[in-house]
Amino acid sequence: MCATWNFKTLKKTDPIPASSKPLSYSYWLGTFVLQGTVAPRVMLDVVGFGLLATGIVYLSEFAMIRFDVSLAVPGGPFEVAGAVLGLLLVLRLNAGYDRWWEARKLWGGIVNESRNLAIAGLAYGPPDHHWRVQFIKWIASFPHVTRRSLRGERQVPELSRLLTEQQIEALLTNSHLPDAVSRQIASLLAEGRGSGMDALAFYSAEKQRCLLIDYLGGCERILKTPLARSSAIQVRQFIFILLASLPFSLLDDFHGTLPAIFGTEVGRSVWLIPLFIMVIAFMLLSLDRIGMELQNPFDTRRVDFLPLDNICITIEQNLLELLHDDALHDYAAPTA
Amino acid sequence: MCATWNFKTLKKTDPIPASSKPLSYSYWLGTFVLQGTVAPRVMLDVVGFGLLATGIVYLSEFAMIRFDVSLAVPGGPFEVAGAVLGLLLVLRLNAGYDRWWEARKLWGGIVNESRNLAIAGLAYGPPDHHWRVQFIKWIASFPHVTRRSLRGERQVPELSRLLTEQQIEALLTNSHLPDAVSRQIASLLAEGRGSGMDALAFYSAEKQRCLLIDYLGGCERILKTPLARSSAIQVRQFIFILLASLPFSLLDDFHGTLPAIFGTEVGRSVWLIPLFIMVIAFMLLSLDRIGMELQNPFDTRRVDFLPLDNICITIEQNLLELLHDDALHDYAAPTA
Amino acid sequence: MCATWNFKTLKKTDPIPASSKPLSYSYWLGTFVLQGTVAPRVMLDVVGFGLLATGIVYLSEFAMIRFDVSLAVPGGPFEVAGAVLGLLLVLRLNAGYDRWWEARKLWGGIVNESRNLAIAGLAYGPPDHHWRVQFIKWIASFPHVTRRSLRGERQVPELSRLLTEQQIEALLTNSHLPDAVSRQIASLLAEGRGSGMDALAFYSAEKQRCLLIDYLGGCERILKTPLARSSAIQVRQFIFILLASLPFSLLDDFHGTLPAIFGTEVGRSVWLIPLFIMVIAFMLLSLDRIGMELQNPFDTRRVDFLPLDNICITIEQNLLELLHDDALHDYAAPTA
Amino acid sequence: MCATWNFKTLKKTDPIPASSKPLSYSYWLGTFVLQGTVAPRVMLDVVGFGLLATGIVYLSEFAMIRFDVSLAVPGGPFEVAGAVLGLLLVLRLNAGYDRWWEARKLWGGIVNESRNLAIAGLAYGPPDHHWRVQFIKWIASFPHVTRRSLRGERQVPELSRLLTEQQIEALLTNSHLPDAVSRQIASLLAEGRGSGMDALAFYSAEKQRCLLIDYLGGCERILKTPLARSSAIQVRQFIFILLASLPFSLLDDFHGTLPAIFGTEVGRSVWLIPLFIMVIAFMLLSLDRIGMELQNPFDTRRVDFLPLDNICITIEQNLLELLHDDALHDYAAPTA
Amino acid sequence: MCATWNFKTLKKTDPIPASSKPLSYSYWLGTFVLQGTVAPRVMLDVVGFGLLATGIVYLSEFAMIRFDVSLAVPGGPFEVAGAVLGLLLVLRLNAGYDRWWEARKLWGGIVNESRNLAIAGLAYGPPDHHWRVQFIKWIASFPHVTRRSLRGERQVPELSRLLTEQQIEALLTNSHLPDAVSRQIASLLAEGRGSGMDALAFYSAEKQRCLLIDYLGGCERILKTPLARSSAIQVRQFIFILLASLPFSLLDDFHGTLPAIFGTEVGRSVWLIPLFIMVIAFMLLSLDRIGMELQNPFDTRRVDFLPLDNICITIEQNLLELLHDDALHDYAAPTA
Repeated sequence: MCATWNFKTLKKTDPIPASSKPLSYSYWLGTFVLQGTVAPRVMLDVVGFGLLATGIVYLSEFAMIRFDVSLAVPGGPFEVAGAVLGLLLVLRLNAGYDRWWEARKLWGGIVNESRNLAIAGLAYGPPDHHWRVQFIKWIASFPHVTRRSLRGERQVPELSRLLTEQQIEALLTNSHLPDAVSRQIASLLAEGRGSGMDALAFYSAEKQRCLLIDYLGGCERILKTPLARSSAIQVRQFIFILLASLPFSLLDDFHGTLPAIFGTEVGRSVWLIPLFIMVIAFMLLSLDRIGMELQNPFDTRRVDFLPLDNICITIEQNLLELLHDDALHDYAAPTA
Repeated sequence: MCATWNFKTLKKTDPIPASSKPLSYSYWLGTFVLQGTVAPRVMLDVVGFGLLATGIVYLSEFAMIRFDVSLAVPGGPFEVAGAVLGLLLVLRLNAGYDRWWEARKLWGGIVNESRNLAIAGLAYGPPDHHWRVQFIKWIASFPHVTRRSLRGERQVPELSRLLTEQQIEALLTNSHLPDAVSRQIASLLAEGRGSGMDALAFYSAEKQRCLLIDYLGGCERILKTPLARSSAIQVRQFIFILLASLPFSLLDDFHGTLPAIFGTEVGRSVWLIPLFIMVIAFMLLSLDRIGMELQNPFDTRRVDFLPLDNICITIEQNLLELLHDDALHDYAAPTA
Repeated sequence: MCATWNFKTLKKTDPIPASSKPLSYSYWLGTFVLQGTVAPRVMLDVVGFGLLATGIVYLSEFAMIRFDVSLAVPGGPFEVAGAVLGLLLVLRLNAGYDRWWEARKLWGGIVNESRNLAIAGLAYGPPDHHWRVQFIKWIASFPHVTRRSLRGERQVPELSRLLTEQQIEALLTNSHLPDAVSRQIASLLAEGRGSGMDALAFYSAEKQRCLLIDYLGGCERILKTPLARSSAIQVRQFIFILLASLPFSLLDDFHGTLPAIFGTEVGRSVWLIPLFIMVIAFMLLSLDRIGMELQNPFDTRRVDFLPLDNICITIEQNLLELLHDDALHDYAAPTA
Repeated sequence: MCATWNFKTLKKTDPIPASSKPLSYSYWLGTFVLQGTVAPRVMLDVVGFGLLATGIVYLSEFAMIRFDVSLAVPGGPFEVAGAVLGLLLVLRLNAGYDRWWEARKLWGGIVNESRNLAIAGLAYGPPDHHWRVQFIKWIASFPHVTRRSLRGERQVPELSRLLTEQQIEALLTNSHLPDAVSRQIASLLAEGRGSGMDALAFYSAEKQRCLLIDYLGGCERILKTPLARSSAIQVRQFIFILLASLPFSLLDDFHGTLPAIFGTEVGRSVWLIPLFIMVIAFMLLSLDRIGMELQNPFDTRRVDFLPLDNICITIEQNLLELLHDDALHDYAAPTA
Repeated sequence: MCATWNFKTLKKTDPIPASSKPLSYSYWLGTFVLQGTVAPRVMLDVVGFGLLATGIVYLSEFAMIRFDVSLAVPGGPFEVAGAVLGLLLVLRLNAGYDRWWEARKLWGGIVNESRNLAIAGLAYGPPDHHWRVQFIKWIASFPHVTRRSLRGERQVPELSRLLTEQQIEALLTNSHLPDAVSRQIASLLAEGRGSGMDALAFYSAEKQRCLLIDYLGGCERILKTPLARSSAIQVRQFIFILLASLPFSLLDDFHGTLPAIFGTEVGRSVWLIPLFIMVIAFMLLSLDRIGMELQNPFDTRRVDFLPLDNICITIEQNLLELLHDDALHDYAAPTA
């Protein structure tokens, strides 16, 4: 029966995230890529700040020419504020990556424990072939169900490759699918223990089943707990204050109102201020945006989402290969 | 009997913290939010520093006009001090989030171990239906009791959904409720072991019971140990020194006393100094305040408190669903 | 017998550290506190640097007036050096808090495992009442003995509440008391196992006994290993170099020797330099001192010492309550 | 038979990475080393930025002389941006080293668990000599297979030292070799358990087998998940913006257009700007490159790759020595 | 027999590292210490940079006087580069301490597990006195052998206190001594299990034996893997670039070539530049050196080496005391 699964050619049809393609080590080749960056996502906001700066420069020129009033403010205090804000954004970016990396580790744990559970079932489980097939297939179902659950989807089409119609139907009566799959694995373990599985091999497998639930719980925690809402808003307010007052403090540096000393100073025209603001806004908003996007590593609309589809298919392939190998080499005497 | 619980429609009537609502990814939509930030909480202190700065400016103008005495001091040394202070505040904010995140992880652990304990009880416990119902209900009581205990409340109204009057009464004779609930679960496990529960399944469940106590202990540690009192006070003193002397050092930058070169320099009037001080005070005090507020993630009056009510209800629902499913599918032969 | 223990009213007579009182969330209320800060402890050193700076200013004025020689040096290189030094101090402060927090976690672990050990002994131990009382009391002795050992004290008056005269006498023949108490608990466990305690319940308890030794060992590690001696000295040398040369580089900023432009410039008198130096010395020395003080969280003379007395009494109370409850509810049949 | 293995003289013929040679503690001796650094790898890109800067300087001189137009822009905003970018790069470098260190830890774990598994097999396994030899040799095969798998190689020549032709052939039918080796070890453990190995010694060994899979999974996670692609691109874009606009802002500092005050100012010639840009580009691009190279610690083409060949040979030697010792001292009675 | 060991007076004759002496909390007392710092070790390199700077100043004066050519370069770009370099060095110092602290934790683990293993052996092991003495003595040998192995020494004189001639001789035939000692402990455990040691007490002890190997492996990992070679070299190159070009950029600040305004400006003489360079070199090279020295915490030639000799003697004393106590109190009936 198992010879009919074509497990080595499972198609990975799901989109492959840009984030899983390695970046060229050479500097120049990796610089002008736009795909897989947040540049397109912050561009509108950057333009917004450019327009705001243009308005401010226009206003200040108008005030100078009509009312002989200078709106320039000293820029000293902004440097330290800018440095602190930069630090805040960079540390948040780091915290975002730690979170993203933790999610990746949790899925790495699901990979490991699925393998260990399968190897334990095949090496120490009862020799009943039917039990073995069921055990492996329910383990292989767990990652699929977990991924769909983390993405808020109820349909798990992958299950039709692994379970019977009735099994799927019964499973879908539960509201929390991963719990129910874990419950099934526990029942199979209890059955295996009853059929003479070694007590400690059973315990070792049970421990791995618990770990699967732990990793699932970790992912749910990351999904449901946005990090640092209060400081996220505050950071945005700080960015606004900084970017809205920076044009005023740059007016003196770009003293377009002074008589030119060295010919025409195009590099000092106040009309360059919006360009400067846009460059700085691009840096700050990018850091803010990446920090935000990293908070939900499971959503395929985010820029650095985890390639969960591939991970799940790899687990399925590895498990089915172990089962296939088991049937071939006849480690245990199958009853069928 | 269990068909009468309407566990799927448990109302989550407790307030949902602003901190659990995700922030919009787009910059502009998330900037001008006040709810769920510390802005209203620091506004009074910010105004206080604004008044202090106004007083200082008034004093310096008075000294200049009446006594021809300049109070301006050089500002150089303040820049580095400001940067170090900013670093200190940002790192404390990070430490606060680590602590908050640790509390969230501990509660994630309570979610996981509750599930694992329930699955173990149902899959490996004795087939006695009464034992199963009791076991699940005492597990479901643990998070409620823990949450109330962490918030210093003795009343646990949720228990009436799960336990009998006598059980609740007997429980309330204890001063440390979570310990007593854990003691009950241990007794049920001992009873289960006596009724033929597998030795290692018992041990696995016992380990999860111990973990529940560990997570509770972790939460109590966070609750009872304010982080960094001595440096918290020192940081506030540094903030005061900086914000009280900054107006003096800004007097030269805003040299309102100099004859105007380019028309009226409204951007350089010394009367703008209080505005600058208030902006900087807003940044520093916000960072200080968020760092302080994050230290008690269990108190609903804090800005980023954890949604423990929802977590507890979710646990209860998941556990009751498992129990409901167990009764339906007749995995084990109920005695009733 | 156990009804005579008045465990709910154990007096906590030991001093409560300022560090365990929560700081007000509001900025102004928490700023001018001196108790529980290192301010009094660094004040003398701060004054020392003030005097040094006064001497330098006097010397420079003398050189200027008598020999027409300016001692002012350029200050540029000092800014970056100051920022790096600030970073070094702030990171050391953070490392100090990590260490302090680790000590707190280790004691949290002692709390958790004491509870778990007691619950396990009462729920799974032999029904012999005498064994139960002894087991709980030896567990309750462990934290007291550990705390005294960490503080280098040989007298443990709290033991008289828990053990008999002979037991205490025999215990004190050992040089390492916590090891000896752990040895006693192990003997009681071996006895319990011999009287029919379940094998895995025994193992679970043994694991918690081992954890108690691990936490003790962690505390001893923190106690005996001062962090970063070589860099601590170096940091102090850097502070000295910076604070001793800063007056020279400030001479130009406070160019009291220039003819006054805007009336009398009291804010620019060189005699303000010592004040500036003292403010900066206060910041640097406070950071240095807190970083040093955090290295021994067990010593009650340190500013942020851990409230070990309270923790130990809380453990004792919780354990005795569990024992009391056990006798009342008659979970097991007491022999007495 | 085992006397014929010359396990003490296994040649380590694989290249030894420069990264495993300790650097001299003395400053001067370790400064001008090029081997094992990324300097040669970034030199081309550095020269590229030098040429770009030369072009910009040439353009600005041309504009000045022909059209009397100055292209100089104010440099103030770039300082803070540069500092934030530096922070970003330094933190990424740190994250890269954490990742690299994690990979090293995982391999350290493979070393430890291989030893423990071997000691457990020899001390607690069945006395059958054939089983012991097989057990040790399959364990010794695991690291070799894992290393080759992580480097994407299918040929594992080292196996011919340890396994028979048929074993190797059967092994190579699997697509995931480490899983298959782990499956073999599990089968040997099941066999040992059947031949009277102690239940808990079996369980302890099984746990170590699971840990080997966990460490393998951790390495695969590091291999397959490039860290921080979106921010890596963004960082490169920031570097480009900074380095491309810095020449314009340096034009004023190197005001070669001003009349010389102190003789010929060769140190202020605008033609020095490309040199400055190259120095700064060298720093920024080196940090970027090291951060990128550290992401794949298994690839021998990377600058700091891990010496996996040596680690694997050391494991093999240690295990064979234990086996050799076992045969000599006759701890267990060999059947052969 | 055990009464003849004078275990309480084991002399600690090995050198006590300066790093284990606590530093005074008071600032002034701890500032001018040289012992236990890297100051003497970097002094030569600092002087080297001083000479280099003197040469540069001499050259620039010569160029100015003879050829009327100024070599001064603008210093702006160096500030940010200096700050980034400082950050890099400080973070490396931190990483060095993390590594050093990890090594200390691993040895703390060896202390803990030695104790736990000994307590387990005495409380749950067979009553045979000879077995107990052997068990304790082999455990006490493990730290000594590990320490010597980490320092690359083959002679372990301490063993003569614990083992017989023949045992030592047999041990020394192995090339990896700690593995062999661990193998002996495993054999004793297997023997104890055979003589009726409880299965789970055996398992608990076996787990601690595995942990000893894990900690040993962790130390070997730290010893054999120099951290961050490529970036260490790069950092030194950055330091060289900075310190070699700083004199040129300071020439303008110390504008000794300008006519003196305020009398003789001795504080602005270019001949002070080498002094400045030496101060900055002292800071940078100290940070670099401490970061390097921390990488091998086991070598007694390093400035902050761990006091392994004391730790090993303390373990030995604690274990022998437990054994002595065991013989006195007759917990188990000794056969002798």
